[in-house]
Amino acid sequence: MPFLQNSWYCASWSKDLTSRPVGIRILDEDLVIYRRADGVPVAMTGICPHRFAPLSLGKVDGDDIICGYHGLRFDPHGACTHNPHGKGMVPPRARLTPYPVEDRSGAIWVWMGDPEHANASDILSFDFLTDTQAWAGFSGYLHINSNYQLVIDNLLDLTHAAYLHPNSVGVDPKLRGDRKLKYKFSVEDGVITSDYSVEGTPPSPLLRLWTDREIGDIYSPISLHLPSNLVLDLSMTDRGMARGTGSRMPSVHLIVPETETSCHYFYALSRNGRLDDPALSESMANIIRQAFVDEDEPMIRAVHDAMRGRDFFALEPAILETDAAGLTARRALAKLIKQEQAALKKSPAGPSDALTESLS
Amino acid sequence: MPFLQNSWYCASWSKDLTSRPVGIRILDEDLVIYRRADGVPVAMTGICPHRFAPLSLGKVDGDDIICGYHGLRFDPHGACTHNPHGKGMVPPRARLTPYPVEDRSGAIWVWMGDPEHANASDILSFDFLTDTQAWAGFSGYLHINSNYQLVIDNLLDLTHAAYLHPNSVGVDPKLRGDRKLKYKFSVEDGVITSDYSVEGTPPSPLLRLWTDREIGDIYSPISLHLPSNLVLDLSMTDRGMARGTGSRMPSVHLIVPETETSCHYFYALSRNGRLDDPALSESMANIIRQAFVDEDEPMIRAVHDAMRGRDFFALEPAILETDAAGLTARRALAKLIKQEQAALKKSPAGPSDALTESLS
Amino acid sequence: MPFLQNSWYCASWSKDLTSRPVGIRILDEDLVIYRRADGVPVAMTGICPHRFAPLSLGKVDGDDIICGYHGLRFDPHGACTHNPHGKGMVPPRARLTPYPVEDRSGAIWVWMGDPEHANASDILSFDFLTDTQAWAGFSGYLHINSNYQLVIDNLLDLTHAAYLHPNSVGVDPKLRGDRKLKYKFSVEDGVITSDYSVEGTPPSPLLRLWTDREIGDIYSPISLHLPSNLVLDLSMTDRGMARGTGSRMPSVHLIVPETETSCHYFYALSRNGRLDDPALSESMANIIRQAFVDEDEPMIRAVHDAMRGRDFFALEPAILETDAAGLTARRALAKLIKQEQAALKKSPAGPSDALTESLS
Repeated sequence: MPFLQNSWYCASWSKDLTSRPVGIRILDEDLVIYRRADGVPVAMTGICPHRFAPLSLGKVDGDDIICGYHGLRFDPHGACTHNPHGKGMVPPRARLTPYPVEDRSGAIWVWMGDPEHANASDILSFDFLTDTQAWAGFSGYLHINSNYQLVIDNLLDLTHAAYLHPNSVGVDPKLRGDRKLKYKFSVEDGVITSDYSVEGTPPSPLLRLWTDREIGDIYSPISLHLPSNLVLDLSMTDRGMARGTGSRMPSVHLIVPETETSCHYFYALSRNGRLDDPALSESMANIIRQAFVDEDEPMIRAVHDAMRGRDFFALEPAILETDAAGLTARRALAKLIKQEQAALKKSPAGPSDALTESLS
Repeated sequence: MPFLQNSWYCASWSKDLTSRPVGIRILDEDLVIYRRADGVPVAMTGICPHRFAPLSLGKVDGDDIICGYHGLRFDPHGACTHNPHGKGMVPPRARLTPYPVEDRSGAIWVWMGDPEHANASDILSFDFLTDTQAWAGFSGYLHINSNYQLVIDNLLDLTHAAYLHPNSVGVDPKLRGDRKLKYKFSVEDGVITSDYSVEGTPPSPLLRLWTDREIGDIYSPISLHLPSNLVLDLSMTDRGMARGTGSRMPSVHLIVPETETSCHYFYALSRNGRLDDPALSESMANIIRQAFVDEDEPMIRAVHDAMRGRDFFALEPAILETDAAGLTARRALAKLIKQEQAALKKSPAGPSDALTESLS
Repeated sequence: MPFLQNSWYCASWSKDLTSRPVGIRILDEDLVIYRRADGVPVAMTGICPHRFAPLSLGKVDGDDIICGYHGLRFDPHGACTHNPHGKGMVPPRARLTPYPVEDRSGAIWVWMGDPEHANASDILSFDFLTDTQAWAGFSGYLHINSNYQLVIDNLLDLTHAAYLHPNSVGVDPKLRGDRKLKYKFSVEDGVITSDYSVEGTPPSPLLRLWTDREIGDIYSPISLHLPSNLVLDLSMTDRGMARGTGSRMPSVHLIVPETETSCHYFYALSRNGRLDDPALSESMANIIRQAFVDEDEPMIRAVHDAMRGRDFFALEPAILETDAAGLTARRALAKLIKQEQAALKKSPAGPSDALTESLS
């Protein structure tokens, strides 16, 4: 299946991008990203059009990038401004394609579709990485050898946490007694939400690190913003209090297709308590990283391998009630991609209307 | 070439199977095997039909197995008996296929074909792992990155031992003086035998570890029970004594196709002397393991790679007299598989008659 | 694209070839090479025709090679002279193909085409490895995971040295002030030359190791002898002196296709000063090896990967003046191969005329 082109994809955490050029493959395209002298991010074709050297092996000089193989210099708009050899002529093909790029919410976002449709206001907005008065947290990155949709499936069905992560982000079912996770599925404004909640539960090991609550209600609504960005607005309240109060621990999960069989996973998580405790942030980052590296990634990769390249629906999966969000997401994404592909054959069309329609 | 389905394949040594679930791919199918609370072995589809998680990443609870991803519970007959989520409904597709499985001769055997044709009396029978009054020995396992037929070829032509294993299981030709290995090839009751013998020879380094004979006759008849189980009934006798007397060292070699390009190699070897010497067993196990790991496996893999995926006969090999067993085995197996495939298209037929016929 | 068959390819440095058999894949054919008892090199099919064991896993005995799997013995003309098993019959298919092989200029050369056209006088001739009165140096080998033509491209355009190797074999452009590299491209007698020179420059770090010149003129003419052997006749002279005088540092770069996606790189470099200093040779060998391993090989492999198997010209590269030699070489080689393939379909024809014609 082709990828959805007309969308903003995360290419880096803001704090990680410097003037050192970084290569990243997104939707099977090779990009190079770096910061200009004034700090503004640049995203361009990642391969030099002369001899196909990855520009990430080159050097940034001021606002420009210089290929590390034969020294062609490109400005941040993609124009080749210097050929150091011979008479120094620059052939017309010596140019890079610039990609629309934005630095928002603590992340670097690249628009992979028609630049005319790039609209920064469509970028997923969240404040818990940037508003350090209200939040403390961390961000991280994981490379995953599976199709990106399997990571979305993983996140939209958090019932897996009790089985795969009982010692980190999940709560062992035995500790909840006979209390079941409540599950509600909804679609609103093109956002697909799996809303989990459980009353009268102890905290997960991760929550226990910083909340004093011994027992309470946990709300875990996770929302997919198509194609592949998820927000989990987790909170643990005293018994019977409103969701979103008490101990809050929001997170984002930005899944970026690299190839058909691999993806980038940018994640960030914050808390609204014990803000001045960087050692706590580090402990939490380690727990999350271990949960992803030791538990999620091996499982997702094993599922990818077990599928052996076959289509998900062709495998006729046994469908549970809790698969509603995952299946809706797969169908909506397939519809969006189909519409975009059809539009690409005629005149280009904006993604916003298509998004709403795909969920109707 | 397809695999032969209607056959018992070794999936584990008995002593190695516990209540911990183990995943194994046989004939390109993913299975999970484990022991129930009463010790009876279970073999079922190895992939959860819900989200394709390998069940080997799950947990056994009593007789049942619980998927490690979202917690579906399956009984040892493959029925899903519990969905812990939502209203707990179990969809019809949520079931595993159980495989006929037997615990015989110290091994766990799985029937990969039509369950109606599974007949435990067809399982290869040998007593030298289980009859500890008469025998002492060891068993082991090796994963081999080659087509399984190359391992059969290797074993049916033991003339290789003198060249590949002069320091372990072979006898250096120089030590035998001008005495040649005698070779006799036969087919009887569907069993293909390469019968090697040599008179007036010193023992191999492996025999020397536990026999006092300085010189004698060595008999090494190795028999293939199609598709891929081999028995080597090695004995070293005093000069002129009957085969099968003296120092005996029988072994089995159970070759199990994993994929077209890889296989499982279960091996076991026993001796009829110095039974109460576990350190001796360990030394012998180490020598055998080294011979397989350092000598056989690299050679077989190199041959597999040199063939580059081409058919064996299409490569027009130079055929020696000593290839009689190997070539007969390849032709008989191809015939069996062809018959089975033809029968699969009509009504299913038992393998026993086909086996006899393939050798006629 | 097929490979050019009618050509001598380097299979080893002379000093590295002993009676130990070595396997090497050239033009996607498996060969074994070794020295006979009298030191004469032998090159033959590398795979035993019996059971496809690589003969490099066997043993050389006198002039013959004995397969390490079942002991077939072959003489250096490829005839099977001994089958140690059964009645010892040797089937007609049990023979190896011998390849014309020569030991010249310090290298072992194998002719991969029609033996009738093998002419030792066509072998690239150079004396700086063998004439130890005039030269001191070293040779080395690198395996490269890229199509061989990308290595030729790399070498024919030495402008990359200033960018990729400023700390080893290149001179940092800043140190040259505003002096440009002069570039002249020529084709003469079927040899394609990229002639670089720069006046009034300090030496490269590699030259600085052994020359006293602080400033001078550097000449770096590099010539491709099709299909893939290059000679770099580097010299640093006092200002205004004739090229080829002063401090000389010639090198050869013998690129040998292994498969479509990998190649062998045999290199050798000598100097005409401080001949009695083996420690200096070792330092220089280490610098060259690091430049190739840490700088060239990663860049060439990255280019290979970035091309993703697509044809070079189909990628529509931006072409610079300094690409003249590389592009001419690609076109000439393609023409040679096309002619050879056409000739293979009719009667075989010698390569010499075709070579000259391909450059006209």
